[in-house]
Amino acid sequence: MESIINEHEKRVEVCPSPLLFDTYFQNKDCIVVVIDVFRATSAICTAFANGIERVRTVVNVDEAKAYQEKGWLAAAERNGEVVEGFELGNSPFHYSRELVNGKQLALTTTNGTKAVGVAKKANTILIGSFLNLSSIVKYINNSPKDVLLLCAGWKNRFNLEDTLFAGAVVNELSKNEIFRGKSDSAIAAENLYNHAKSDLMSYLESSSHRNRLARLNLHQDIEFCLQHDKFDVLPILKNEDFVLEKL
Amino acid sequence: MESIINEHEKRVEVCPSPLLFDTYFQNKDCIVVVIDVFRATSAICTAFANGIERVRTVVNVDEAKAYQEKGWLAAAERNGEVVEGFELGNSPFHYSRELVNGKQLALTTTNGTKAVGVAKKANTILIGSFLNLSSIVKYINNSPKDVLLLCAGWKNRFNLEDTLFAGAVVNELSKNEIFRGKSDSAIAAENLYNHAKSDLMSYLESSSHRNRLARLNLHQDIEFCLQHDKFDVLPILKNEDFVLEKL
Repeated sequence: MESIINEHEKRVEVCPSPLLFDTYFQNKDCIVVVIDVFRATSAICTAFANGIERVRTVVNVDEAKAYQEKGWLAAAERNGEVVEGFELGNSPFHYSRELVNGKQLALTTTNGTKAVGVAKKANTILIGSFLNLSSIVKYINNSPKDVLLLCAGWKNRFNLEDTLFAGAVVNELSKNEIFRGKSDSAIAAENLYNHAKSDLMSYLESSSHRNRLARLNLHQDIEFCLQHDKFDVLPILKNEDFVLEKL
Repeated sequence: MESIINEHEKRVEVCPSPLLFDTYFQNKDCIVVVIDVFRATSAICTAFANGIERVRTVVNVDEAKAYQEKGWLAAAERNGEVVEGFELGNSPFHYSRELVNGKQLALTTTNGTKAVGVAKKANTILIGSFLNLSSIVKYINNSPKDVLLLCAGWKNRFNLEDTLFAGAVVNELSKNEIFRGKSDSAIAAENLYNHAKSDLMSYLESSSHRNRLARLNLHQDIEFCLQHDKFDVLPILKNEDFVLEKL
């Protein structure tokens, strides 16, 4: 294992928008980490921490509705709000153990589930958020594969919170000498994270999406989603569904 | 004039890749600044400082060749090198007064001229580089229009040098109270610039593109392109060509 790693200069890249995925994606064997900190990937991590069995991301609301009719839990969020006809959106607080333990969930969101959709060309797809930062880093460090950190952004735009999490991952990986190849976007994300990490909340007060969330009264969600390593979970795509990877 | 400005919250956004232009572009009346620091937009600014009359950006090498046959100066660069059959590429040092004064130039490059191509939906397109930073800022401050800073990047990827220049513009504009609306990408670019500005050269030593340029022996070009405000020029698109805007 070690000799494989040493022969190969592992690369870490940050893709700032799902629209740029094909530009950054160069080999099917890389690990893609899908990142939608506010709030889809934070909600998925919370659901797994509370015992959900599987999460299927779906593209549109009708599909989510169809799973609901088959008896799955179903969640739909658009523009930060729960879609009419659903009980669940992308707030981590929706995913209590009481509700989700042992269940299967179909989920559609504004940004996060679309990012999963474009990432499906890769053989390995993980769900990343501050809540499971160390689990993500541990998986990557134990693998010889290149890494592509895919920020869901906001409607295909660059956003700060996803970039900061990508920077947190790069920062951790940089402690490992094996990682030498960094894209410009990875360097920038790491610098931004180091600039902001002492108080992510204050830093994000300047961001457009945080203001959007603030208007929706989501202060509590934002604080929750910025917690580092609250959960020891690693959602990974196997066939059609995200399931828990054993660490 | 002032009342128009005060009624309207001017926005400044940074588009990190030409592929995201349509995502960021929301009104034809905004000012788009095309940025390709290493080296197309730095070369264009240098050519204007040395008396060139007009610059027409063209998409491919054959088109540049056709202008060459009509007696224009023609320049073609791909992957950092001058294309065979041309004397001129995108090095600022190619554009001496002796050669360019009073002439017209057709130019095609790997990234910069493509960025101009996608920007053509906007009514106002400027050429920006560190060399003409203050001219860009002055024009924007004298206008009530929104601003979109378009980074050419490297083959549609995010790059550090274009982002740093965008950040320098945002940083200057931030001194003007009128500018309150900033995209997340503008906030990030400004932070990166402030992080790196004391020694841009050292900071860029970590970037992928700089390494690429270093392999091509372009240290001198890089130092030249990082000079702030060397020239008091403002290339602006009028009809098909960039010409000098009177400041």
